[in-house]
Amino acid sequence: MSFELSLNTGTTPNLTLEQAAAAVADAGLGHIGPWRHLLEQAGGAERAAAIITDAGLSATTLCRGGFLTASDDAGRAAALESNRAAILETAAVGAGELIMVVGGLPAAAGVLGGVGDPADKDVVAARERVAAGLAELVPFAAEHGVRLVLEPLHPMYAADRAVLSTLGQALDLAAPHPAETVGVVVDTFHVWWDPQLQEQIARAGREGRIASYQICDFNLPIAADALKSRGMMGDGYVDFATISRWVAEAGYTGPVEVEIFNEEVNGQDAALTLATMKQRYADLVLPHLEAGAAAAVPTR
Amino acid sequence: MSFELSLNTGTTPNLTLEQAAAAVADAGLGHIGPWRHLLEQAGGAERAAAIITDAGLSATTLCRGGFLTASDDAGRAAALESNRAAILETAAVGAGELIMVVGGLPAAAGVLGGVGDPADKDVVAARERVAAGLAELVPFAAEHGVRLVLEPLHPMYAADRAVLSTLGQALDLAAPHPAETVGVVVDTFHVWWDPQLQEQIARAGREGRIASYQICDFNLPIAADALKSRGMMGDGYVDFATISRWVAEAGYTGPVEVEIFNEEVNGQDAALTLATMKQRYADLVLPHLEAGAAAAVPTR
Repeated sequence: MSFELSLNTGTTPNLTLEQAAAAVADAGLGHIGPWRHLLEQAGGAERAAAIITDAGLSATTLCRGGFLTASDDAGRAAALESNRAAILETAAVGAGELIMVVGGLPAAAGVLGGVGDPADKDVVAARERVAAGLAELVPFAAEHGVRLVLEPLHPMYAADRAVLSTLGQALDLAAPHPAETVGVVVDTFHVWWDPQLQEQIARAGREGRIASYQICDFNLPIAADALKSRGMMGDGYVDFATISRWVAEAGYTGPVEVEIFNEEVNGQDAALTLATMKQRYADLVLPHLEAGAAAAVPTR
Repeated sequence: MSFELSLNTGTTPNLTLEQAAAAVADAGLGHIGPWRHLLEQAGGAERAAAIITDAGLSATTLCRGGFLTASDDAGRAAALESNRAAILETAAVGAGELIMVVGGLPAAAGVLGGVGDPADKDVVAARERVAAGLAELVPFAAEHGVRLVLEPLHPMYAADRAVLSTLGQALDLAAPHPAETVGVVVDTFHVWWDPQLQEQIARAGREGRIASYQICDFNLPIAADALKSRGMMGDGYVDFATISRWVAEAGYTGPVEVEIFNEEVNGQDAALTLATMKQRYADLVLPHLEAGAAAAVPTR
């Protein structure tokens, strides 16, 4: 089966892994994308893997590694250590794919001296540190059968979350590494506005790097906590028909993960959230994935 | 003289044109970039031109035309009419350059049926309408000696303000038209995050299209009214040293306009704002423009 729906646990932040897995199974879905803190809460990645398997589910991705932009040695070493641990957890939980949010400017992350130091606002240098950190992690990830999945974030988060802002940039960053070890995620919230989106999705397909398709809407106004501007599909301004068609035309047939940070959605009953996302997916997304798949060019 | 500072009146929204012109002259600056409503308030573009000239100033740009994304005939006709009026005002006020904010999705602008109609979220189609509208306006602008200046806006405004999000996209949109009639503006707030910024600024210089360099900072957190997240240079996360060097290396030597929408800055005494922006400009921007100019490749 293609295009199976998966729940990213960021959508149901008040549930334990056990509760989330039960809700997903009750909704008739087969996949879950957990966040790392739920693994820790469950007693470790092996125990989390058992919870997921016992519920009859599989893990699609693990959220998240990354944050590779520290400009000091200690910060850099800590980030690499955290990412190695995340790689091991990804393997143990059976997800195979670790989502990487690469980190923002040190000035915004508070890593060094704060907003006053011009060197901490050098986005070009921050990107070079991401590339260097990725290169250090790739052999370790490959050794453990884990794929590092680069996530371009919406440019509104470029200062504080990710100096990786477009799919094209993610593919350039991935280029020196094998496609089976470094992939990219297409997240509709982050990339819908990109004038190069169609060509870069097609390129990602040709290069065998589309590791995940994550969906949610782009709502307005931007939420007071900007991270929570993600919305249920259909509530905002994303053209799911077009983007879903492009993703499927590029050859992607894997799970489709719903990740929504939104006060209202996060606070409501998980069964309602799952029922709504299933319906919206069926109405707004899946038909266009299927149409795209019918027109897809074969890829490796 | 190169790199002369200009005040965009969006920075001092509580002042009339006469008051703003006086404040600019008192601060020892020679340029002002007015918004259209100040022209109307002053009794028309000719009267506004006299106010600006009498204060010993010149107008750098007029804000703004654009909003070309309506998908209905009436909306489209109204937009073209408004733009023709703005072109005439630009000529009359002596600015020569009309800043164009191209418009967002009809779904977000409330032009048609609202968020429910998928066709109103088609960003590709909205961009095609911008290109068509621009093509209709170019001969009229050329006839009146006015340059239409395309402004890529930060992607956080792609839904409701501008489906034009990157400098590269602006240059592609400008490409069919003469450089003397269609230019682009480099606004640090909007473009600082762009991984292609260096190459696209260089391209804009080669193509003779840099019409304006607008500066302000990118502040966090994003303001409750997202439009007001712009900050005084040095208060946020923009690397002014690097971007200013690139702009000057690309051959730009014109005015540098400060446009800040920010509750605190907009509410304070204009003399303080002007003094602060002069100081920050001297400290954080001008030295890097001068260094870039020294290394600039000659352009037409």
